[in-house]
Amino acid sequence: MASQPLTFLFLLLVTTSVLESSASFEPNIRLPTTATSVPRSNIDDDLYCASWQLAVETNNAGSWAAIPSRCVPFVRAYMTGQRYASDCEVVANYSLAYASTVQIASDGKDAWVFDVDETLLTNLPYYRDHGFGSEIFNESCWDEWVAEAKAPAIPSSLKLYNGLKQMGFKIFVLTGRSEHQRNDTRKNLELAGYTGWEGLILRGASDGGTPATIFKSERRSVLVNEGYRIHGNSGDQWSDLLGFAVAKRSFKLPNPMYYIA
Amino acid sequence: MASQPLTFLFLLLVTTSVLESSASFEPNIRLPTTATSVPRSNIDDDLYCASWQLAVETNNAGSWAAIPSRCVPFVRAYMTGQRYASDCEVVANYSLAYASTVQIASDGKDAWVFDVDETLLTNLPYYRDHGFGSEIFNESCWDEWVAEAKAPAIPSSLKLYNGLKQMGFKIFVLTGRSEHQRNDTRKNLELAGYTGWEGLILRGASDGGTPATIFKSERRSVLVNEGYRIHGNSGDQWSDLLGFAVAKRSFKLPNPMYYIA
Repeated sequence: MASQPLTFLFLLLVTTSVLESSASFEPNIRLPTTATSVPRSNIDDDLYCASWQLAVETNNAGSWAAIPSRCVPFVRAYMTGQRYASDCEVVANYSLAYASTVQIASDGKDAWVFDVDETLLTNLPYYRDHGFGSEIFNESCWDEWVAEAKAPAIPSSLKLYNGLKQMGFKIFVLTGRSEHQRNDTRKNLELAGYTGWEGLILRGASDGGTPATIFKSERRSVLVNEGYRIHGNSGDQWSDLLGFAVAKRSFKLPNPMYYIA
Repeated sequence: MASQPLTFLFLLLVTTSVLESSASFEPNIRLPTTATSVPRSNIDDDLYCASWQLAVETNNAGSWAAIPSRCVPFVRAYMTGQRYASDCEVVANYSLAYASTVQIASDGKDAWVFDVDETLLTNLPYYRDHGFGSEIFNESCWDEWVAEAKAPAIPSSLKLYNGLKQMGFKIFVLTGRSEHQRNDTRKNLELAGYTGWEGLILRGASDGGTPATIFKSERRSVLVNEGYRIHGNSGDQWSDLLGFAVAKRSFKLPNPMYYIA
């Protein structure tokens, strides 16, 4: 089908409307900035929690602070049963199928961006001990876990990562983890089987209070300005995927445990 | 929280990067334009189909032509059981909760955009007789169904619609149906309980081959240029929600039966 003409038409139309109205600058499906409370439904828990999870995954829920308490058993069952692995595998398969349609140029500028937590690595051993996201985030406990560098790979993400490398994509790992966690993060990624990335980008001191969407968009922008074509982007948070300098295709991995604005 | 400053920061950053690189004009999470085929998984059918459905709803699947044949029983069970109604209800509740945070001005320019099929109305009686989307689309059968004007309201959408009207939102109904179906569509909407919209926008003769994302973005642009603030947009297709002149919040209703590019 007509990928290039459609993209061009988009560019043309967006360019035109940018000249006409500043409203057109606004990013698509903007991340909400305020949490909304929703009346408790009467639908039974499993049915409600499945619908809540879909609302989270499609970003209909917007910003949320914690799993609804009635859904903790549902999230535990999801994360520890077959569904989580299956959902991740299907996303990886769609990602690979799309990647195989990309024409890799000889200039080494065809790129793919990955988030780390709940994207390349799973922190399930940590969250299993901390209520699957239902407990209030404890930064010192989390930092200890990161320093242990023992989060396992999500198996289907490792397969995707290696497949993309083999196809000739340059891999950029872009994470909200802090620069002071670089060594632990590198060590964990390598122990989990991830090697040969082109860049590992973490939050520097000056990125402190920047929302994730903006921090990640800014860093993707740097790549684009360096001539990289970001064909794909894999992340478990909408803030990994939206904003600007977005990838041609974005892939949302499931995560019903926590939300990062 | 800081909704306006964040929006401003977005505008500033996007404006800056627009000046730097044309890549920044590209719409977020672009709709794919080519269908990708995915290797058949070994996971059992219900597990696979649940993961396939999540991939469809999050737009990870990209463009797809028909339900995988092994998933037809799954989709039938979903659409005719409690889950579909529950999923729609949870989306409507999140939509209403967000809407209640919007400050309605006295200028009558606070707007909400709705799609029609599988958003305000359900065509389940039609799709029940046509394989729940697994049959090849038959335009003349579909046109007959539209002319009957008897698609029921999705109950939670009707509740949302009336709630928004009561709050003072101006409602725009924006559908891919053709202009020659205006009378049947108006009649069906009214019979289903929808009244008092500000505009009913259909595809005109000149919109013939325009992809849905562009057609809908163009029409939203017209509204924005008329001074409307599009706070919310409800649709069952990503092509209802993405592109440009997008709403401040977009709400994706479920639809595992068909995909419109």
